Amino acid sequence: CWGPWASACLLNLQRRILAASNTRGNVVKNGDELMTKADELNANPLPYGKTLGIRFTHADPDRVVAELEVRPDLCTRHETAHGGLIMSFADTLGATGTMVDLDEGLATTTIESKTNFLAAVPVNTIMTGIATPIHKGRTTQIWQTRIETETGKLAALVTQTQLVIYPKG
Amino acid sequence: CWGPWASACLLNLQRRILAASNTRGNVVKNGDELMTKADELNANPLPYGKTLGIRFTHADPDRVVAELEVRPDLCTRHETAHGGLIMSFADTLGATGTMVDLDEGLATTTIESKTNFLAAVPVNTIMTGIATPIHKGRTTQIWQTRIETETGKLAALVTQTQLVIYPKG
Amino acid sequence: CWGPWASACLLNLQRRILAASNTRGNVVKNGDELMTKADELNANPLPYGKTLGIRFTHADPDRVVAELEVRPDLCTRHETAHGGLIMSFADTLGATGTMVDLDEGLATTTIESKTNFLAAVPVNTIMTGIATPIHKGRTTQIWQTRIETETGKLAALVTQTQLVIYPKG
Amino acid sequence: CWGPWASACLLNLQRRILAASNTRGNVVKNGDELMTKADELNANPLPYGKTLGIRFTHADPDRVVAELEVRPDLCTRHETAHGGLIMSFADTLGATGTMVDLDEGLATTTIESKTNFLAAVPVNTIMTGIATPIHKGRTTQIWQTRIETETGKLAALVTQTQLVIYPKG
Repeated sequence: CWGPWASACLLNLQRRILAASNTRGNVVKNGDELMTKADELNANPLPYGKTLGIRFTHADPDRVVAELEVRPDLCTRHETAHGGLIMSFADTLGATGTMVDLDEGLATTTIESKTNFLAAVPVNTIMTGIATPIHKGRTTQIWQTRIETETGKLAALVTQTQLVIYPKG
Repeated sequence: CWGPWASACLLNLQRRILAASNTRGNVVKNGDELMTKADELNANPLPYGKTLGIRFTHADPDRVVAELEVRPDLCTRHETAHGGLIMSFADTLGATGTMVDLDEGLATTTIESKTNFLAAVPVNTIMTGIATPIHKGRTTQIWQTRIETETGKLAALVTQTQLVIYPKG
Repeated sequence: CWGPWASACLLNLQRRILAASNTRGNVVKNGDELMTKADELNANPLPYGKTLGIRFTHADPDRVVAELEVRPDLCTRHETAHGGLIMSFADTLGATGTMVDLDEGLATTTIESKTNFLAAVPVNTIMTGIATPIHKGRTTQIWQTRIETETGKLAALVTQTQLVIYPKG
Repeated sequence: CWGPWASACLLNLQRRILAASNTRGNVVKNGDELMTKADELNANPLPYGKTLGIRFTHADPDRVVAELEVRPDLCTRHETAHGGLIMSFADTLGATGTMVDLDEGLATTTIESKTNFLAAVPVNTIMTGIATPIHKGRTTQIWQTRIETETGKLAALVTQTQLVIYPKG
């Protein structure tokens, strides 16, 4: 790319790179539009993820990040996030990470999950979840998710195993 | 208890026995009324338990049972209960079991939880959770919860550790 | 079976029943001899199981039981069984249970394991492990193992997932 | 430190710094000698650690590293490290990390441990374990240990909770 059309050429090149990264990158094509993988996930939420209010802020095959506001109706008696809410948030992140990584046509299901709870997350604050892969195998993937409070404190650490499901036949 | 007032005497005796079982049994006193521990738990739900629709059907220090209807807004894309929902349900049961067992003034928090997922729970069915204690120590209690589908199939097995919290001073 | 040969007939019948239970029961054929599945396991120990001194006392597809003497060289500083020893014992039991259950030609490997430690096991006592299946699926089996002290106290509870491995082709 | 004795002065300074890091650093005083914390751990092995052949190569309150040779007598039938061996190695590392971190007089015990197995470790190779803290609380510490093969592949990931034990009275 050089000369008077260098700028247009570079733009075109960039588009082709983005299109190539379509299936596994963090940018996806939606009709003529390019959108981030996170935007796509937010546009097609799981019913339960919508109920809880999970918002993805980043998604690529090696890192998924999301936020969740600890609404009063998601708390225990003590005005802190219920442990089940934290596990739900993390499970969504780990399963999403696996989905983002897998080739089209494959699916996944969580077969086991382990959580250590380290700190309370107060009501009306926003917690952040960061999921990264530990292992990407043919049969299983293992993802680990850190749940952090608004002040960056580690609230929970979750490790989960995702079974990779291949189409039959 | 004998003679013409035997019946009244027996009734009174029964009431005193029930009152004595107040703090740790499955029957509690609510003003002049006797109610089951499960009714009391349903009358004072945790905000998150109310959001998910958890209904206790039995509660004593050695067994807590509850039901949860898998509403469409609590599902994954595949019209089955989200894994996070199942973990939320189980966490509520194990923590409640510990609370029911502990003497008044003590509290508890879940410090870790492990789930194995075994079968899907379909939308619009009712799943049942049964929590029983594995260990009741001074520092921790361990509870195990079976989540069963409407047809009695084991959908998940959850083992969790509850820290026992003593009042300060 | 009746008349003068009733006793011989019954013996023969018993042998045929035992032979029929060959592949999946707790009795196996070893040349002309019948031996229990536990004896067979003890006769062909895993190197690590031999190092630790694991002795099977019962094995069928729904229950495996074994014993282990807590030798001084298997202890922590406090003259109690090392936590790793307890997990090694349990892992052997759960994996063996899966092997006993699987049809010939299939294999298994532990993909994850979770242990709760509940009580210490003193040196120079014999601990017992009892493994039972929670789930027998096509892809995975889940076994739970109780480790008990010589006095029958629950020392540890282990839940593990076994991947079922099919021959290639 | 300057002039003709600068070198001796700096050496002395270095010694004083090392002495100051005595209780919590990776260097400890043994009579007149300075030795690394790892050397001290190797000089006073747990009976079980000695049986398995665990050798510490580094130890400070934020990182413990050790090696273990996969001897044939520590294997499963398939000439790979037994899963129980891997868990024993990791448990030793996590518990040691907590001990190294804790002030003198305090003790610790593992209350729960979770392992994901990711790759086999071949016989007659040396595996390395690296333990780092996830959480250092007043009541519990959580350590995570990576077990790596000789070629640096992640063979297992272990997360364990250590109870902090205070002296009575």
